[in-house]
Amino acid sequence: MSNQSQDKKYMPEIPQKEIDELRKSIKATSQKVMADNIARMKKTSNNRPEAMQYFDEVADFFGKREKEIRAAKEAGKKVVGYMCLFAPTELILAADAIPVRVNSGWYDTAKLGDRVVPVEVCPVIRSTIGAKMIGLSPYLELSDSLISVLTCDGQTKLGEILSDYKPVWSMPLPRVKDSAQSLRFWREEIMTVKKQIEALTGNKITAKKLRSAIERTQKATKAFRRLQDLRKGNPVIMGRDAMLVNQTYMWDDITRWTEKTEALCDELEKKVTGKEWVCSPDAPRVMVTGTPMIWPDNWKLPTLIEEGTPQGVIVADELCSGERLLYDPVGVDEWSMDDMFNAISERYLMASTCPCFTSKDGNEDRINWLLNKVKEWNIQGVIYYVIRGCMLYAMEYTRVKKVLDRINMPVYYLDTDYTREDVGQMKTRVEAFLEMLAARIDL
Amino acid sequence: MSNQSQDKKYMPEIPQKEIDELRKSIKATSQKVMADNIARMKKTSNNRPEAMQYFDEVADFFGKREKEIRAAKEAGKKVVGYMCLFAPTELILAADAIPVRVNSGWYDTAKLGDRVVPVEVCPVIRSTIGAKMIGLSPYLELSDSLISVLTCDGQTKLGEILSDYKPVWSMPLPRVKDSAQSLRFWREEIMTVKKQIEALTGNKITAKKLRSAIERTQKATKAFRRLQDLRKGNPVIMGRDAMLVNQTYMWDDITRWTEKTEALCDELEKKVTGKEWVCSPDAPRVMVTGTPMIWPDNWKLPTLIEEGTPQGVIVADELCSGERLLYDPVGVDEWSMDDMFNAISERYLMASTCPCFTSKDGNEDRINWLLNKVKEWNIQGVIYYVIRGCMLYAMEYTRVKKVLDRINMPVYYLDTDYTREDVGQMKTRVEAFLEMLAARIDL
Repeated sequence: MSNQSQDKKYMPEIPQKEIDELRKSIKATSQKVMADNIARMKKTSNNRPEAMQYFDEVADFFGKREKEIRAAKEAGKKVVGYMCLFAPTELILAADAIPVRVNSGWYDTAKLGDRVVPVEVCPVIRSTIGAKMIGLSPYLELSDSLISVLTCDGQTKLGEILSDYKPVWSMPLPRVKDSAQSLRFWREEIMTVKKQIEALTGNKITAKKLRSAIERTQKATKAFRRLQDLRKGNPVIMGRDAMLVNQTYMWDDITRWTEKTEALCDELEKKVTGKEWVCSPDAPRVMVTGTPMIWPDNWKLPTLIEEGTPQGVIVADELCSGERLLYDPVGVDEWSMDDMFNAISERYLMASTCPCFTSKDGNEDRINWLLNKVKEWNIQGVIYYVIRGCMLYAMEYTRVKKVLDRINMPVYYLDTDYTREDVGQMKTRVEAFLEMLAARIDL
Repeated sequence: MSNQSQDKKYMPEIPQKEIDELRKSIKATSQKVMADNIARMKKTSNNRPEAMQYFDEVADFFGKREKEIRAAKEAGKKVVGYMCLFAPTELILAADAIPVRVNSGWYDTAKLGDRVVPVEVCPVIRSTIGAKMIGLSPYLELSDSLISVLTCDGQTKLGEILSDYKPVWSMPLPRVKDSAQSLRFWREEIMTVKKQIEALTGNKITAKKLRSAIERTQKATKAFRRLQDLRKGNPVIMGRDAMLVNQTYMWDDITRWTEKTEALCDELEKKVTGKEWVCSPDAPRVMVTGTPMIWPDNWKLPTLIEEGTPQGVIVADELCSGERLLYDPVGVDEWSMDDMFNAISERYLMASTCPCFTSKDGNEDRINWLLNKVKEWNIQGVIYYVIRGCMLYAMEYTRVKKVLDRINMPVYYLDTDYTREDVGQMKTRVEAFLEMLAARIDL
């Protein structure tokens, strides 16, 4: 038995037996990696917030959240997957469907993706292709349809490749955001995807439902911001823990996630009052920026920073897998349909600092975000992280470096791939950078 | 003395002395490469068309065309450079300005570009950056402004980097073309650039002037098509010669280019009648597809094919530096301003087979172009050419291969960089492919 490749544009024929064996073995590795990552996060601090326990559980890709979504599907709900955070999840929620982000952080499936695209291609893309080849990702498998926002070159072709298996709704994104026609165009794309969501789910997106969805997301944003703001002072949460909280938003139930995040913040506030720091307040305060770091396997760099000698702590990031996810609320004035759609269009387009954008001042919004973060979060060093094949982040490095040099902020360029093999040499490089930061702090 | 890098977003400070020395030495190498390429093209066939002499001359980047444009500028004309063939050159011509494409084919400047962007980035981009760093390209230097169409990731950031030196007009391109909103959006971008051209030149683009510009381009398209059609039969022109004719369009005076191309076609028709083939009619008929091959240095692959043992001949291509340039005319029904702008918008968006596009059937237009060419031009083998760092072409390979396999058409994936060092091993690979093709023909 084999899957049919004849009518597929991209995907090769793979015997079902091979698929099953690969899925079994990669799933087992992944379960081990997730457990190991969480064990290490627990071990990193004696003061780890107790509220993290919830996020540890929901982080399990093969755990209770998968079962929940499966049960919801059996009860008639639809699932809409998405690859980039430009997908307007409010519309998915308003149609009583479940949004899940399906970009892959699995190292082992990137090797499988090499059968479809050359090895030079961004590993997030290769890994997502590989995950689909063997049906590894429960959320991707459960998706009834995928929203593919055409941000970078890799994402553009990824949607095409995945359309061998699933209906894919492409949303072209204008690469200049500050023009009237761009916003108009993007709004039209949002209206198109609205119709597609309605057709898939059979549920009309009414003003009432949309308002409710926006309000739920606004609450999530509020909790999300509260968490990031708590990272401005002496550390009460390690960066990896905050990153895990941020990422679970992408597949968790949004209302429950919001409650749990608020509870976490309550606990963190008590720690602030009690001066219960999660690590030494002298640990170098690091910001990471660049390509997304996706759970579970691609936890390599945060682990190296926070388990390093000297130990660093990630207090902020500029990542689409991190703080960019949910930092900006949809700002509605009136609650007419028109106003809500305007607000959604503006929020997804204007708030993004993704390097797919340019303007007459280049991707100025990203520069401003970074400078603001450095100041407000009292950053002592920046790691500019690029996975090989990610041209946009690689190309913007020179500009970011120039800007950070000007304010005397150390920045280190670290490039890597979806592989475990380079952890040793990365450790040496990361620790040398942390040592330099620690020496500057001592001065 | 040094150029100022303080106010530049990307470009590093380089001492003027170093700039001058680099320009001098790279220019000298380039002049040698151009002379050598042309000498080799002459030597390849005893039957080389005499009309090629004109194109040999105008191909010289440091020759009479540079002087002409310089003189025109001194007389008050403006020059508008562009990086991608989506730039609506009709509007530039209608404003009495001179359009020139400035993407670089120089190998040596790619190494300079590495000072600004990582080496993994597409070499066309790195080379164009390097050319600007040392002021090597007369056409780039003479440009008063640049049109940067935001096609791929590399081009998007290239525009940003060049804006350190020149006014850059970014034109975001919708990555899905078959929707009403995409066409509307693209038309608005065309209208925006029209205003920018008018402001730069001080010349209003009237209906009369625009019509004249469109008609000149239509004539050029007619000559261009006539040349490509003459390559359907037994070879009367080598592929490299046709490629040179195609590329000189990007900087030559369009009316003169059209006359010279028509004259070349007259000569070629006589050769058809006289059965004066330019090489053996049994030479494997090759199509090249993939990333652009830009004059003068990046003549590597066509040279290997047409000087190979056995000798192949390139009879068609699917390249934005080749047949995609000018194959499709602007189709105007009435000659109202409105109709002309619609026609220009449609032509640039809809006719393109660039892999930056996708749709629910993927980049189907490219597949159809390739299949049509294979059939109509009697292709015997396809070389799929990718320069490292070009994700879009790399990613579409699997699909193209599947389609060509299905019609039993041999296809060979060849990846390379802007370097001379791999010519030896490329030669081995190309000749093995040609041998296989020759063996199939003998069967």
